[in-house]
Order: sequence, then C-alpha cells, then structure tokens
Amino acid sequence: MASLFESLSAEELEGAIERYEAEVAELKAQGIELDMARGKPSRAQTDLSRPMLDAVSATSDLTDEGVDAANYGAPWGIPSARRLMAELIGVDAKNVVVGGSSSLDLEFEALVHAWVRGVRGGTPWGRLERVVFLCPAPGYDRHFAMTEHFGVENVAVPMTAEGPDMDVVEELVKNPEVKGMWCVPKYENPMGITYSDEVVRRIAALSPAAPDFRIWWDNAYVVHGLYDEDDELLEIFGAIEEAGGGDLVYEFASTSKVTFPGSGIACIAASPADIADLEATFAIERVCPDKLNMLRHARYLPDLAAVKAHMRRLATIMRPKFELVDERLREGLGELGCCSWTKPRGGYFVTFFGPEGSAKAIVRLCRETGVTLTGAGATWPYGDDPSDSDIRIAPSYPTLEELGRALDVFCACARLVCARLARDGRAS
Amino acid sequence: MASLFESLSAEELEGAIERYEAEVAELKAQGIELDMARGKPSRAQTDLSRPMLDAVSATSDLTDEGVDAANYGAPWGIPSARRLMAELIGVDAKNVVVGGSSSLDLEFEALVHAWVRGVRGGTPWGRLERVVFLCPAPGYDRHFAMTEHFGVENVAVPMTAEGPDMDVVEELVKNPEVKGMWCVPKYENPMGITYSDEVVRRIAALSPAAPDFRIWWDNAYVVHGLYDEDDELLEIFGAIEEAGGGDLVYEFASTSKVTFPGSGIACIAASPADIADLEATFAIERVCPDKLNMLRHARYLPDLAAVKAHMRRLATIMRPKFELVDERLREGLGELGCCSWTKPRGGYFVTFFGPEGSAKAIVRLCRETGVTLTGAGATWPYGDDPSDSDIRIAPSYPTLEELGRALDVFCACARLVCARLARDGRAS
Repeated sequence: MASLFESLSAEELEGAIERYEAEVAELKAQGIELDMARGKPSRAQTDLSRPMLDAVSATSDLTDEGVDAANYGAPWGIPSARRLMAELIGVDAKNVVVGGSSSLDLEFEALVHAWVRGVRGGTPWGRLERVVFLCPAPGYDRHFAMTEHFGVENVAVPMTAEGPDMDVVEELVKNPEVKGMWCVPKYENPMGITYSDEVVRRIAALSPAAPDFRIWWDNAYVVHGLYDEDDELLEIFGAIEEAGGGDLVYEFASTSKVTFPGSGIACIAASPADIADLEATFAIERVCPDKLNMLRHARYLPDLAAVKAHMRRLATIMRPKFELVDERLREGLGELGCCSWTKPRGGYFVTFFGPEGSAKAIVRLCRETGVTLTGAGATWPYGDDPSDSDIRIAPSYPTLEELGRALDVFCACARLVCARLARDGRAS
Repeated sequence: MASLFESLSAEELEGAIERYEAEVAELKAQGIELDMARGKPSRAQTDLSRPMLDAVSATSDLTDEGVDAANYGAPWGIPSARRLMAELIGVDAKNVVVGGSSSLDLEFEALVHAWVRGVRGGTPWGRLERVVFLCPAPGYDRHFAMTEHFGVENVAVPMTAEGPDMDVVEELVKNPEVKGMWCVPKYENPMGITYSDEVVRRIAALSPAAPDFRIWWDNAYVVHGLYDEDDELLEIFGAIEEAGGGDLVYEFASTSKVTFPGSGIACIAASPADIADLEATFAIERVCPDKLNMLRHARYLPDLAAVKAHMRRLATIMRPKFELVDERLREGLGELGCCSWTKPRGGYFVTFFGPEGSAKAIVRLCRETGVTLTGAGATWPYGDDPSDSDIRIAPSYPTLEELGRALDVFCACARLVCARLARDGRAS
C-alpha cells in the first residue's frame, strides 16, 4: 500500500510523529482501561437470554420425548436438542452428538480420541513420530494452542478472502503425516470472512494421503450474522456427498454466543461411521452430559426460526459496534493509505492489517495507553505472524461508548507506529 | 462357608433343586422386567432437587462475589462453588477446580493430561511402553474401562473390609511402571465399605518408585451416608501432610447423586503444584465450564450443612431399599450358609458373594427371569472375577415394591444356582 507518509518530507514526517506522540501521551494521561482482547459477548447480550433461565423450573416436565433429562441416560443428548443443533448446522440429527457446554471441549475430545485410540482403528496419533495440522492463518488462537499442546506440528496456510488457499492445502495433504486442518468456515475468526462455495467444494473433494485425516470444522458463527442478508456457507457434508462421499469432517457448533458463554450447549457432527467411532470414546469419558441445560435450550429455542429471531435481537447490539469499528478506522487511519481491515457481516472479530512490522508495536503501545488487544501474532501458529502486520479486534464486550474510546486509542497508536516505521524505513 | 446343601442327601438335594426350578419358572411366567444394574437415583430422589431449578431465574443476580457467571471467565469455577465442593471433601478451596457436570469426565481429563503432557513435566504416559494401574477389586467398572481404553494395564488388588490390601499395594508401587491407582474411599463402589484410618494412612505414606504416580481418589459418596452416624473417612491430603507431604492424589467429587445425575457439578482437588500442572491442560481444553449451573448449586446448597440436610431427605428414600436388600437376602439365602453380602451404611451398592463359580450363572438366570443386574465380573479389571463369585446389587432405581420383587427373583435364582453347584461339586 502507498503510504501518506511517503509523500511527506523528512521534516514534515518528524512533525507528524511529534503530533502523534502528543496525542498518545494525552490519551494515556486519561487513565483509560479498556479490553478488546477476547470475543466475549457484552452484558447487554447475555441479558437477552435471561428468559431461558425460566424455561426449566421446579414444576417443569423434565422429560423430553420420553427421555428423563433429570437422570442418567441419553449419552448423545436429548432428542429435541440433537434436532435443534442439527437444524442449526443443516445436518441429520442422527449424526449429531450434543454434549457439554463447550464446542472447544468437544474439539479437544475428538483430538484425544485420535491421539489415544486412533481414528477408525488407525494408529493412535500419540504413537506417531510426527503429526501435522494445517492452520489457515490468521486463525483462532485457541485452536492452534490445542494442537500445539498435543505436540502436533502446526503449519500455517495462507488465508484468502474466500477461505484457505486451496492450492496450498491440496499440495500439503499429499503428505500422510498431515492428519488434520482447523477451519472456522463462516465469519471466520479473526477475519470475519465466509468460505466461498468454490473453497468448500475443493475442501469436500480433498483426497488426503492419510485415511485418518480429518478437518475440525468449527462452525462457531453459523447463525451469527449481523444483517438480514446472511452470508451463505455451503453445507459441508452435502458437499462431500456431491464430491463422492467419504469421512473427512468433524463439525462443531455451540450456543455459547447465542445464549450464555460457557453455559450453552455444544455439538459434534460427523459421518455415521465417524460418529460411531467417536461415541466409543465419549462413552468411556462420561455417563452422560448435562441434559437439563439441553432441555432449557430446546424449550427456549425450539427450532432454527426461534434461534434466528433471537440472533436478530443480539445483532441489534453487535451491528453498531462493527459499524463503529469501520467508521473510526476509516476516520482515523483511512487517509494514511498503509492500513486496511476486514468488514465482516457477522461473527465476533475484525482483522486489522498494518504495514509489515507494525502489529507488535501497535499492540504494545495500545496496552501502555490503556487498551488491551489480542496479542499480535496470536492468530498465527506459535504466535508467529511472519509479516507482523495483523491485529485481531474484538469489539463485542465494551459498550459502544467504551469501544469508541478504545478505537480512538487504537488509531492514535497505529498512526504513531506507522509514522515511526516510515521514518525508520527511510533511514535504513 | 459351610453350605446347607452339604447336609442333604443326594435325593434331598435333587428334591430341593426341583422345588427351586419350579419357583424360578413361576417367577419367569410373571413376565417381570426390572433393572438393578446401575447406580441410578430414583425419580423420587431427583424430584427432591427440583427446587434448585428455581435458584437461578430470569431475574436473578447472575454474579457470584463479583464473578459474572453468565459470561466467559473464572475457568476454575465461581468462588462459592469452589468453596462448597472444598467443604464437602474437606480441603482448601484454592486447591479445588470445579468444572463440568461429571467427575468421571474430570478423571478422564486428568488421565489425558498424564497421557499427552505428562504429570509435572514427566514423560507423557502415551509415550511409555507399559503403564500399569492398580485396581482394588471389586471396584467401579467405569474406572477400569477408562484405563483399559487408554491401553493401560489394569492389575487387580484384593479388597479387604478396610480397603485395598496395602501389603500388596506397597509391594506393587516399587515398580516404576505402576503409575496410578483407582480408589473409591468412602462407601466404595461396589462393596459399600469405607477405607479405615489405617489404610488411608498407609496410602498417604506410599513411596512409589514413579514420581508421576498418582491416585485417582474418587470420593463419589462423600456425603452419601444413609444413617445419622456417618462413616468417617480420614481426609487424604491431611494424611499426606502428616506422612511428610508430597504430590500423590487427584481427588474427585460431584453432586451427581446429590442433585441431578449428569447435571450436577464436579470437582478435582490436588496439591497446589499438581493443580497448577492440571490447569495448564484444562486451560487448553475450554474457555470455562458452565458457571450458571454452579451458581444454581451454590445458591440452593450454600454449604455442607445444607448438603447434609438435603442428603438426609434423600436417605429416607434410599435407606429402606438398602434395608430391604439385607432383609430379603437374609430371608431368602441366609439359611443356605454359602452366600454373604455387604451391609453398607451409605453409597449406592451392595456386593453379594456367592460360592465360587456362581456369579455368572446367577446373573444369567436372573436376566432370563426378568431382572437385569450388573454383569458378573464387571467390577473386576477386564471383567474377570477370578472366583466368579461376586455380584453388584444396585437397589436405588426401582421403587421399594419393585425392588422387593427383584430381590425375590434374585434369591430364587441364587438358591437354584447354589443347589446345582452343590450337586455338580458332589458329582465331580
């Protein structure tokens, strides 16, 4: 990108840096303390789900289509909750297991299954010398941390505006040591983009060398659009069928950002043979998941239409925040010509791209000035953004007013860092 | 044991067998269908916890001592829930992590931690050639199934009326391949006995060859006494301190059989260094557990006194069932002289001991006659009870009337099997 700073003389640039330093110093003096680090719903959002807490009360019928939700049993979830989650992600309920309150937990459990038992009778991954996961980056830091925790080798795959660079993916899966790939296909964390039909079809048609290769398809933001016109994600299992079938995907979703973070319900979906394979581990792990919380959810949000109506109410809180991000970044950084950012139509994050070598410095300066951001590089495997240029912005938690102030700090810090970089670049 | 059948002539014995066969045939004709297989609370018991479902409602304060239970955060549990579980098991709340609804799940996660990461920096168990667990038997079938699932070698250790045979345990832990031991120290599943102070002290003083040896101390029935006079279990971490300290135990508990099975809250406690070590894995696994369910529990059962009052109400339902088991077994089998059974003062199970070689036959005959029991041998590693003599009886789920009928079937079947065994023994 051509930067405004290139058109300035050395003296003009020094003058700009001095003005920017004064701005940052002034903001710092205000003693701001704001957090834009995590994709955490605001209090106003969680309050909208409060009525759900009355959906199961002391006098409620605690059975669900003959299943007693108040006792052991139904290890794969109560019928109505399995149907609800299946409808959300567009698959058949018989291929869905609802379990626990966290999709991250289910992703971990699926990894444990592969690690300890092996996928469909394959060698347990824990017994292999080398296991590689493909990590479209920037991506979700907790995903990468999980495979890193297991000693898996995370390999970054470039992201495009349509999803992972499939030329790279198709090449890499020829290596039988490549056992998996992380994907957040809709309103991707942190770019906010949705995989194009073309990318989903190429994913569905992959022929990995490893028969136990699986994609951890984390459909975290499946119903999390901000506008009436929602991004359309091609349903992956249907796409696999069209491509000739096969066992390729573990899909995950949860209501963590629909109802209560941490107290939602989560699901895993897979092919019939894969689900049966996974159930063998789940059955060892627990007698059954919390079915009363499933009942609470299924009664409050009986179907996709109810979920969508609920999400529209949530979107009225989120949409102005996303729009404020774009507005303030345009106002504060637009004319510099060296910064860009995504304009997601859903999800929880905006990704900001500064000039090469700017991200760590901006995040550090923001922190010193009172605004906490996700660590620069966190969205890359091993925290290593090779160009040190992208920053994840999570606008959901602060109020609109706080967010505005945080963005002012962000812009002031980014301006200063960009100007200094321009000077240093000129000097070297 | 001297059997009544020994005093009978061959003809008398044949006559008895014919009478017993007629009895069983008559019961079978009644088309009974009863289940005494699992330690599952009855509907009357779970109904007693219904008021808890109103403890958190749409209008409740959803914070707990400053922690927002309705959002992400507090990965080790909300303060009041950690304090509650700590008080239940008699340890310091700072060494307790409350997470999820299932202690079995936490036991699995601790095993995953050891398997994938290693205990306190030790070699991950998944990388070792051989990992051995000690399994006091009869014990809890789901425990043994879990280590078996990981490929651990389960080694049976004889149970005594005071707990595991510690002479055997002390000898076995000299082998550095021995990495763990399963224990249900109070109202043990399935014998119902509580470890004596002497046994707990010897456990606390163990010096295993493996520095990463840990005991999975499943205090599942810590508040599950049936009588005012509760069995006293020596608190294990205190005993370890007295023995000179060390990191030896992961302790587990839950409210699955206090409130709602599968929808309770569960905890793990360990030494400060061990808890920090485990938290490194838990932090990777999920953002946070379901804290609204913790809030529900902590408000309905704010302290140990409240839990004990609640358990006394539950005991009024359970106690008559345990007493009926003893009464019917005495009436139906007492005079035979070849059967015995435990008389637990708490917990969920009674263990029946028949003559050698009788258990599988009794369980099979019961099933044919309409009563499902836990499979014979299930309480032993690999399902292998070397003397084929013990049977787990789970009296909690049926009503008192159903239980009476199931016990009549059990006694009739046991009588017939014992008489046939006496005849076969005489013939050989």
